[in-house]
Order: sequence, then structure tokens, then C-alpha cells
Amino acid sequence: MTFPDFHHEADYLSFLEARSALPAGFRAAVSRIAFTPQERPTLEPYRMNLALLCADEPVESFGGVFTRNAFPGAPVILGRERLAEPVVQGVLVNNKIANVRAATGLEDARRLTAALGERLGLPAERLFSVSTGIIGWTLPVAEIEGAIPSLCDGLHRGSALDVAQAIMTTDGFPKVRRVEIGGGSILGIVKGAGMIEPNMATMLAFVLTDVAIRREAARRALAQAVRESFNAITVDGDMSTSDMALLLSSGRVAGVAEDDFVQALARLCGLLAQDVVRNGEGAGHVLQLTVSGLQTDELARGVAKAVANSPLVKTAVYGNDPNVGRLLSAVGDYLGSAGLSVDPRLITIRVGEETVFAEGAFRIDREKEVRLSDYLKSAAMNPRVTGYPQHQRSVEIAIDCGMGRADARVWGSDLSDQYVHENADYRT
Amino acid sequence: MTFPDFHHEADYLSFLEARSALPAGFRAAVSRIAFTPQERPTLEPYRMNLALLCADEPVESFGGVFTRNAFPGAPVILGRERLAEPVVQGVLVNNKIANVRAATGLEDARRLTAALGERLGLPAERLFSVSTGIIGWTLPVAEIEGAIPSLCDGLHRGSALDVAQAIMTTDGFPKVRRVEIGGGSILGIVKGAGMIEPNMATMLAFVLTDVAIRREAARRALAQAVRESFNAITVDGDMSTSDMALLLSSGRVAGVAEDDFVQALARLCGLLAQDVVRNGEGAGHVLQLTVSGLQTDELARGVAKAVANSPLVKTAVYGNDPNVGRLLSAVGDYLGSAGLSVDPRLITIRVGEETVFAEGAFRIDREKEVRLSDYLKSAAMNPRVTGYPQHQRSVEIAIDCGMGRADARVWGSDLSDQYVHENADYRT
Repeated sequence: MTFPDFHHEADYLSFLEARSALPAGFRAAVSRIAFTPQERPTLEPYRMNLALLCADEPVESFGGVFTRNAFPGAPVILGRERLAEPVVQGVLVNNKIANVRAATGLEDARRLTAALGERLGLPAERLFSVSTGIIGWTLPVAEIEGAIPSLCDGLHRGSALDVAQAIMTTDGFPKVRRVEIGGGSILGIVKGAGMIEPNMATMLAFVLTDVAIRREAARRALAQAVRESFNAITVDGDMSTSDMALLLSSGRVAGVAEDDFVQALARLCGLLAQDVVRNGEGAGHVLQLTVSGLQTDELARGVAKAVANSPLVKTAVYGNDPNVGRLLSAVGDYLGSAGLSVDPRLITIRVGEETVFAEGAFRIDREKEVRLSDYLKSAAMNPRVTGYPQHQRSVEIAIDCGMGRADARVWGSDLSDQYVHENADYRT
Repeated sequence: MTFPDFHHEADYLSFLEARSALPAGFRAAVSRIAFTPQERPTLEPYRMNLALLCADEPVESFGGVFTRNAFPGAPVILGRERLAEPVVQGVLVNNKIANVRAATGLEDARRLTAALGERLGLPAERLFSVSTGIIGWTLPVAEIEGAIPSLCDGLHRGSALDVAQAIMTTDGFPKVRRVEIGGGSILGIVKGAGMIEPNMATMLAFVLTDVAIRREAARRALAQAVRESFNAITVDGDMSTSDMALLLSSGRVAGVAEDDFVQALARLCGLLAQDVVRNGEGAGHVLQLTVSGLQTDELARGVAKAVANSPLVKTAVYGNDPNVGRLLSAVGDYLGSAGLSVDPRLITIRVGEETVFAEGAFRIDREKEVRLSDYLKSAAMNPRVTGYPQHQRSVEIAIDCGMGRADARVWGSDLSDQYVHENADYRT
């Protein structure tokens, strides 16, 4: 499932619609409510989407990976509890309010799983309550409860595109990827656009498969896939209170070799992670940072993230300005702060096909500046275009530090004025 | 020297002009050149300002603090060498190009000190060559050399406002502070607006005094003052290749108790540091983060900087949106990443006079939201107004973690779309 360039939202949506079939044994539904927040005076009611993913039978093989934020939201606290259950069966998701540290947050989450369980004829303990949106506000529990009957009545098979759309917050477009494996498939639906940094900040990922796999193998596979995908992307350095990735297997299709499943899941999550970066709030470019030649993976990852997170690097890329001095400065900032003394003659920096720093000095001239600027322009996206990914190109930056054998790769986005606009009054 | 609110650039400049007298024994001059950069094709020549600070006699009591970036510019390498000299006497400063890792950078810096020394009748070793601006480009050495005679001819006493103006890059206004001590004074001139993070990124500070002080005492005083001022501010998390703070004493006025000097210098640098934050590229608010109740100063400082650097916190403040959930999320991100488990019931967060989080839950309601938004508006600056500081108010955020006795204070700025505009094509 590779993507062509898109020029219209409708083309993207029909492309996705045809490629987002729920695996056997799962149904989905969405609904919408209106409410007035307890915490803010409003003239117009707020809108909230609800989504439901539901397995036909109890699922024994499931797993979850959660944020490391010290103040996780109620959905994360509840989700961690659910990992100990013998079986689970469904996930209720709302956008708009993240249900983090409101006075009645955990109680509200439990109440919703109880109400949903009653309607579906299931124990509450088989259900997840997942929320994304504003931190600190209280869920409109009564309004959500009121919508549960119609939500359950709407459960359907076929495409899960409606769920991918319903769980969006500042996302510019829905994100779904699907891989086929053995006689079945793995479907991934992801939500996330800002606050993307290690550990999946403000990111929700729901992965459903009909391929049989043992619970422990599923959990190992999910942990590895998250490490190499969602934990290798960075948009703005924040890690949210609400991130999670859930995996459920209906087991309807005969299993495959565990390694094959691990690889397929990692590939799926890698594609979803890059979708999230490309969809970063107001992103004008996707950056792929490859850092090699350091003593440890941790150091390589640290340098890569430092460069990818540098606001000065990000704003220069946004402006298609090949201000390569800022790359060296960001590397030097990180290594210097880590107390390392480094011989600049060992460092090589490449942007696309161009070497811009080698043997201790910058290698730039007027012609190369023009080529670099053209390269940045060729990978640019219009950050004001939303609704579909315009293309799949990235700005590739490779930094070799010449001091060891460890390397790391991360993906990030640039920093546009559109990002600031979106986050300056996110809650309106 | 406290500042009133200003409404016109002319008022600010005449206020500053009257309060920026060079201490006894120092002269200053500025000049301007045009050049075509080696690295970029241009239709119009670039403009570069030159500034010269010069003591009448050799200065035995001087000190310098430099960036910890692993790839320091030639001025930093040369400046560190100069610390071992028995005496120094002058500082040549240029803006526009930072002289970092150009192939001939160190050679260029030495050539400029030689040319200047020849004109002034001094050994090159008594002179600093200091540069700020674009990283990676080559200094127009011939053009600078050509301007040295007229620069030296222009040496004058009285106000150093012209120097504060000449060394600006993206600075919105010149920054000078002066304190009187004993029978003399300490004058501080600072340049810096973006890339401000610990260790004075892209910040140049020149501190001149006529108060006699021994060299070692001067160096101790400078180190302490920098730690509590320039190293406690953060605008965007980058630490540049070029930062430095230099202190020179002409010794013309009888000395004071060392403690008094230390305190006066720290006060001066604190004021200059806040000037830099207030002048952050496109800053719409100054944030003062006070974090208390942690086990170590390092942890407290880490939390304070994490919150001050969170793009989501910064953009919310820019929008006068009291999205206090992002404060807790940023604290939790830092503490969670540090591997600490924290009881949320111990955390208290205050914004201005309002408690927004206590006893494990957010404390917000519709009326408080309105008051918080009004508070943010009252501290807002128009980021498009440049030329003068509009007022001296800050957004005060206090976070008590309830787990220890260590605390820290940092100053930062919000993140406006204007910041992105300025940095997206800084080099044009």
C-alpha cells in the first residue's frame, strides 16, 4: 500500500476507503455529540466524535503500549489495568477532551465502559475507554452515555475509514495503513499530528488483525514495532499524557511465523509513523535525519533528535533556506552539552546528495546553495493544504560523526507559521 | 536603571542614550561596510556593521565566558587563547557572519586582530575578534580591513548606544544596562534575540567597568553572574557556536568589596538577560518559570526549562489561551522521561495569582478561564512592534512538585508566528 501523489482530498479518501477493510472478526461505528464544556463559557456547543471498535468474540491476544508521561490520563491508567484481563473485546474512543486529571476522570472512564458493556452485553472490564484532546477538562459523560445506543446500532464491517476520521483532532487527514500477511491482514489506524515526540505523544494507534498470534508474541511484536516507528518520530518535542497503541487479534486466520508477523507489524507502524509526521500540524517538510559514527545508539539518537527538534533548523527548512550552519550548531550544542569534545575534522554532513561539511569546514558555494534550495523546494508541502498528503518526499539529512559504529534514524517536520497558528488557540 | 513602559522607539533610544555612558578609560566606535558573500549569489551587496571597544591603557583585569557548543566559532577559539594573555586592550565586533568553520576562519580572525593592532599600535594578542551572524560563511576580510582606519578614527567617549545598535542581528532593539558602584560604574552591552538557551546561545555580552578589581576576582564574578542570568534564560532551546561574555576593567576608580562587585555584576547581567528574552525573535510574552519542591537543583532547572521550551505551552501563551493542561503535560513529560514516578497529588501549579492544579486535579472553571486569559493578555506584547521594549511585565508560572527543597527560576518567551517568519529566511 504505497501512496501516489495526491491533488484532491476526494482522491485520497477514495484511495483510502478501498484499502482500509476491517480484518475478519471486527466491526466499527462512529457517532457525534454536542455538549457545553464545564470549564469554558461558550455561545456555541462543542462537537465531539465517538468511535467504537469491537470484536465479535472475546479477544485473548491483545497488547498495549502507553505514554511514559508522569501524569498519564485516565484512559492510560485504565488501559494499563486492562492488560491483566484474560480477554478484551472493544475500544470506545472520543476526541476533543483527553480526560486527564479532571477531578472525576477515572470514574468517568469506568462509567463509560460500564454503560457500553451493558449495551453490548459484556463486562465493563473487557472494554477500553480512550480519549484525546484538551488536557484538564471534564468529559461530557451524560452526553456520551446518551449516544451509546445509536453508536452500537451503527456497528458495521468493511472500511474503517470512518473511525480514522472520527478520532482526528488537529490531524489534517485520516491515516490508515493495511498490510496483508498469510491469509489475513493487519489494519492500523492512527491519530496524531502535534506533540509528536518519542513515546508517541498525543498519538493513538489502533491495530487490528485477524491473524492468530499468541498474546505474549503479540505484545513483543507491538513493543518492537513502536520502538522503531512511533518512538523514532519527533514533531515538537512534547510527550503527551494520553498516548497509546493497542493491538487486538481476532485469530480468525491461521497464524504465521512469529518473525514474519513482527516484520509486518513493524512495517505497518513505520508507515503510520511517517504518516503522522507528514501530517504534523502545519508541516511544510518531512525531515529524515540519519546520524552515524557515534559510540552508542543512545548518543546517535540524541544527536538526531536534537537536530530534528532545533527550531532554527526547522524554520530554515520551512523557508527552503539551506542554512546548513544551523545543522552543525545543533550537533555541536548536543555533543557539547553532553560534555564530549569532538574533532570537527571527523564530521561529515550531507543534505540530499550534497556534502555541505567535511574535513573541518563548510563546503558551500553559490551554485551549491542554489541546488540545496531547489532540493528543499522539491520536498516542500503547502502547510495550509489539509485533507490529504500531497506527496511522500522527505528532506534527507545525513550526519556522520566519524567516532564509532552506532547509528540512528528519526523523522521530524519543519516549523511553519501555520503550526503556531494551530496551537495558539487550539481549544476554540 | 529601571525602565518605564515605552510607546515610541525615539523615547526608548533617548532614554538609553542618556544612561549608557562608557566607564572611564574606554572609548568606542562603529562603522559600516558593504560586501558580496562568497557563498551566495546576490544582486544587492550585504551590509555589515563593525564596532570597536577600546581601553586607553592595557587591561590586566579581564575575563571571558564562552559557549559550550562542541563546534565553537573562530572568535571563541581565539578568545579562549586570549584569556592567557597578561593584558588585553580592545574588541572588534562584526555582525552578519559568525565566522564559524569557514575554511580560513581562524586565520581570518587573526588577520583582523593584526590589522587592527597595527593601526592602534598594539600587538595583535591584545585584541579580540568577535563575530555574530550566519554560521559557515566566510568573513569579508579585505573589506573589514579597509574600514579599520576610519573605524579607529571614530573612537569616542560618552554613550555606547551606537555599539549596542551596531552589534544587533535579529535583535528588535539595542540593549544596554548600567549600574553605579562605589565611585564608578559597570556598563553592559548585550546582543541576542534568538537561539537563546543555556550558555548564552548566539549571545554576545560586553561588560566594561572602571572599578578596580583583581583579575581572578573579576573572572569569578563573571562566571557567577553568567550562571544566574544568561544561563537561566531560554528562548528556543538552541546553544550557538559563538556565544561569549567578556569583562574588562580599566581600574580607573578605586575598588569596592569583592562581594559588592559580584552582586552588582549579577544584577546587571540579570537585567541584560531579561532584556534578551523580552527581545526574543517575535516574542509575544516573557515567561518566568519558578519550579520548587524537587530533590535537586538540576531537576528543578530541568523541569523549568522543559516547560519553558515546550512549543505547545509557548504557542498557547502566545494565543492568550490558558491551556493549563499543557503545563502539567510538559512537567510529566520531563519527569516521566527522567524515570521518576510522581504522585500527582503533590503537584501545585499557579499561573499569576490563580491556582490551576492542586491535590491531583485541575482547578479550573469558566470564570477562572476568563481571568487567566485576561492575565495573559495583560502581559502580552505585540511581536511585530520592534525598536523598543513595550513594557516589563511577565507571565509568572509557579510549579511546586512537593518532593524536596530545591528550586530554580528560568525566563523564556512564547512562540509566535513572527518567530517562524524571522527564522525561515534569516539570511536574506
